[in-house]
Amino acid sequence: MDGDLRGDEVRVGGDARQRFHDSRGYGYPLDGNAISLSLVEAAHLLFRGDLDSVDGMDFRTFLAGRDAGFTARFLVYADLRDRGFYLAPDRDPWWSDPGDGDFVVFPRGKGPNDGDVKHRVRVVDERTDVPSDDLGGEVLAVVDEESEITYLDVTREDPAGDTAFDPPEGVEAVLLDDRVLVWEPPADLHEIGFYGQPLGGRASDYDALQLSLLEAAYLAASGALAFADADVEDVIERGRDTEGDHFDRRLRVYRALRDRGMVPKTGFKFGADFRVYADVESVDDLGHSELLVRVLPEGHVFTPRDLSLDVRLAHGVRKRMVFALDSTSEDTIRWLSVSRLTP
Amino acid sequence: MDGDLRGDEVRVGGDARQRFHDSRGYGYPLDGNAISLSLVEAAHLLFRGDLDSVDGMDFRTFLAGRDAGFTARFLVYADLRDRGFYLAPDRDPWWSDPGDGDFVVFPRGKGPNDGDVKHRVRVVDERTDVPSDDLGGEVLAVVDEESEITYLDVTREDPAGDTAFDPPEGVEAVLLDDRVLVWEPPADLHEIGFYGQPLGGRASDYDALQLSLLEAAYLAASGALAFADADVEDVIERGRDTEGDHFDRRLRVYRALRDRGMVPKTGFKFGADFRVYADVESVDDLGHSELLVRVLPEGHVFTPRDLSLDVRLAHGVRKRMVFALDSTSEDTIRWLSVSRLTP
Repeated sequence: MDGDLRGDEVRVGGDARQRFHDSRGYGYPLDGNAISLSLVEAAHLLFRGDLDSVDGMDFRTFLAGRDAGFTARFLVYADLRDRGFYLAPDRDPWWSDPGDGDFVVFPRGKGPNDGDVKHRVRVVDERTDVPSDDLGGEVLAVVDEESEITYLDVTREDPAGDTAFDPPEGVEAVLLDDRVLVWEPPADLHEIGFYGQPLGGRASDYDALQLSLLEAAYLAASGALAFADADVEDVIERGRDTEGDHFDRRLRVYRALRDRGMVPKTGFKFGADFRVYADVESVDDLGHSELLVRVLPEGHVFTPRDLSLDVRLAHGVRKRMVFALDSTSEDTIRWLSVSRLTP
Repeated sequence: MDGDLRGDEVRVGGDARQRFHDSRGYGYPLDGNAISLSLVEAAHLLFRGDLDSVDGMDFRTFLAGRDAGFTARFLVYADLRDRGFYLAPDRDPWWSDPGDGDFVVFPRGKGPNDGDVKHRVRVVDERTDVPSDDLGGEVLAVVDEESEITYLDVTREDPAGDTAFDPPEGVEAVLLDDRVLVWEPPADLHEIGFYGQPLGGRASDYDALQLSLLEAAYLAASGALAFADADVEDVIERGRDTEGDHFDRRLRVYRALRDRGMVPKTGFKFGADFRVYADVESVDDLGHSELLVRVLPEGHVFTPRDLSLDVRLAHGVRKRMVFALDSTSEDTIRWLSVSRLTP
């Protein structure tokens, strides 16, 4: 059976409708029993040997003549078919409610006429930039240089926790270097609020508590800390000395997480900004942190490689990766959860 | 007992020599039974209550008056003491063979007079830059913003493997988009040499092999591949279109690893440049890759956060992190292995 190339679609006559569309979900119907296929669908039918040629071209020649980016889309289409899904180009008239994806994937056993989409998939080359503004609610199918496909589920998140702790007021603190010391902390500040870390570690005899500049800036702004010879602006300036604008961004995100009942601690060991606990009742009873949060500026553009690294890291330590996309008003921080998906 | 501050050392008289130096490894002997302590050693003795004051200052006041970076060094010193080690400032006259570190740490049970150093430790703030040129043979003690310490062992590496495979000659290939297809590959190219990936995955009926631009550039340069309408320069140009100079760097490292009997494949899923197998006899019998390699330009400067992330990722997937510091001649690629250490 042969197809005719018509612009960026391929028309197939004969009994194509029954053979390819009705039972196998390829293409959309034309007049009679003919159908029209997208270029990727046509390539797949050539690849499977169901079509013999398109305008006299076999699979190899057809593939070689396509535009940049085609091979990656073909590989994802083929992979999803291999996994037993029906899928269609995410545009009219293949799918009646099109979006920004390359394909819509239907739940196993369902097809384009059942009205239900399982995944909206966007195909991305290993080096295609992915602007954060566009993200939320799709699956990125990242095709790497060796043609392996990594599926990343990107969803809008609304982090929330159950931690409730009211910090005390006016606790004396000292600004030192790039950390803050509280020589006589109220026990609950660390034991229940999980602020800071005891000087000399948890086994120390010393009661003093060390706070990061970030924790100290947050506490000082609400009057929980009082410095003898510094104020909250000095703490913030010290923070900016070490990390510039990133400090202010992290502070906004820190505040937003605390306001949502969550407890952010440094994510340094994981190369992230924060590890976040959803529910802290006491330090002795601490579970594992659940999220890793990376704070990014407004308008940040991801590389798939960095997404892949962060997601892999989080999964390796049984946490979820969340990107906090900053805004100058806390109310509009956008939270994106990204995790690896087996479709 | 009290100390006298003298420049950047603290003199302690009385029976200080017996009490602090002989049995506990602090300071170096002066005349009689007096000793001289470094500022960090003095701070630790104040912290432990072994010294009552230095120039009338208690621990808090002494700490508050020190320069930037002191607190981090103090925290590392205290942590290593807590772990049961003797350690000394890495300079004369505390240690007779000083290097670039902050401290030399002796094997447990040994001291400065036993002539044996277990670790040379360099204290690094979370945001201190670490030039790659300086690295190799030390332990970085990274103190993060919440005063947790991560120890990273940095050693010069000499990667080597046992893989021996001679690629065939003149295999026909097609340059497509940003990957290369070989329609009729000799079976061994993938099965034994582990080049490329079968089109449509390992379960595919199709014999075609996909190669990355990198693999193809390497094979084409030695005559293993022949293109109908392209040459090795075209493949390299296509690589540079997607990743600029980084492609050339990766190609140099790829070549060096293959020459050393190792098999590099894409490290994309791990956010690295390569995952590397030391010994590949056949694809059916493939073990796990052992190294993750990140390729960096000459003169690269690390941030401790990025080191921490890479090392954590590698450990999480049971691999070793190796940085390949490029040079324009393959013979002088420097390989640095970085792993987390419990001292």
